[in-house]
Amino acid sequence: MKLYYAETANCYKTCAVAQYLKSPVEFVRVNLGELEHKQPEFLAKNPNGKVPVLDTGNGYLWESVAIMCHLAREAKSDLWPNDERQVEVLRWISWDFDCFLPGAGVYYYENIIKPQFNIGKPNPDALAEAEPQFKQHAELLNTHLAGKDFVVGNSLSLADFSLAVMLPYSEQAKIPIDDFPEIQRWHNNLMQLPAWRSPFPTRDK
Amino acid sequence: MKLYYAETANCYKTCAVAQYLKSPVEFVRVNLGELEHKQPEFLAKNPNGKVPVLDTGNGYLWESVAIMCHLAREAKSDLWPNDERQVEVLRWISWDFDCFLPGAGVYYYENIIKPQFNIGKPNPDALAEAEPQFKQHAELLNTHLAGKDFVVGNSLSLADFSLAVMLPYSEQAKIPIDDFPEIQRWHNNLMQLPAWRSPFPTRDK
Repeated sequence: MKLYYAETANCYKTCAVAQYLKSPVEFVRVNLGELEHKQPEFLAKNPNGKVPVLDTGNGYLWESVAIMCHLAREAKSDLWPNDERQVEVLRWISWDFDCFLPGAGVYYYENIIKPQFNIGKPNPDALAEAEPQFKQHAELLNTHLAGKDFVVGNSLSLADFSLAVMLPYSEQAKIPIDDFPEIQRWHNNLMQLPAWRSPFPTRDK
Repeated sequence: MKLYYAETANCYKTCAVAQYLKSPVEFVRVNLGELEHKQPEFLAKNPNGKVPVLDTGNGYLWESVAIMCHLAREAKSDLWPNDERQVEVLRWISWDFDCFLPGAGVYYYENIIKPQFNIGKPNPDALAEAEPQFKQHAELLNTHLAGKDFVVGNSLSLADFSLAVMLPYSEQAKIPIDDFPEIQRWHNNLMQLPAWRSPFPTRDK
């Protein structure tokens, strides 16, 4: 299998899952700065022109959640449990898409992506608007995590990798995480995993 | 089980799945106009203050995709296949969230929700901005559906119910669907299902 990636948030969680599972994938870096993802060769793999993409050996799979699910299924891993916990993992992945990520993502976009790709200054109005949205959802997650090491049940799952995806960037993105001690504790635990701390292959690979 | 719903798009697909599977659920209508979903009694069921919510008999489940998955698992239905097709269903549900729904959703919000809840006139700039985004993604889906009756494999799945959710509203929401004959053919087939055509219980129930 080949995993086409770049150093983006969606690739962060996907590469972390591949590293955690020691999936038999070759990591192939896509140069977004040179718009490699918009060239015909890449668009033939993913017509959406986005990373990550997994060449499964049986076709091209896109959408990070689907790739993570495929890798977990291949490894018969409980990251994607094959029982009723699946519903709970889905609940939290969906809630992340709907609620948690949109708020946190504004900080990531304004404070990291804009400077990185030279597309203007952070917009203070956008950040001010995101703050109450982010805090409302962070409060819900913080309450859910009280006394828990993992989002679903007693073990690591794709829900943890999904919900945590903005947190390694929280300092640089200035995400206001200080008021949420349970989120911080949970994420500090995740950071003990080498796969979560350093999901991307070193650049000279 | 009790399914708390209102006549919204997320509830449309969830209620359709429950009706299709003949799930043993009692439908309980939540009056959004009277802000029932923001009252303490409802927030105890879903702290997000949103419909749908499923009382599974073993707790409250929210996020429509998780509810649909739970209902399909309970019914041992292939709407949520328990094999590699699961990854494909997830791919398309995720792509819907990421790509297809945001574009279509602008039409739904501007042309249906705003008039319905009396929150201003449709914004022509928002609609003009949504059009190329919607058409780009509709083109991808249209190409994918060529010669197919279903989004994944040869049978109906949660991917169909998810991706189709704006289409019953397309005329009223003025979603520019005319250029996409494969989407129209696929959706016309779905409309043959009573559960998709009329997912909501009649109001006097």
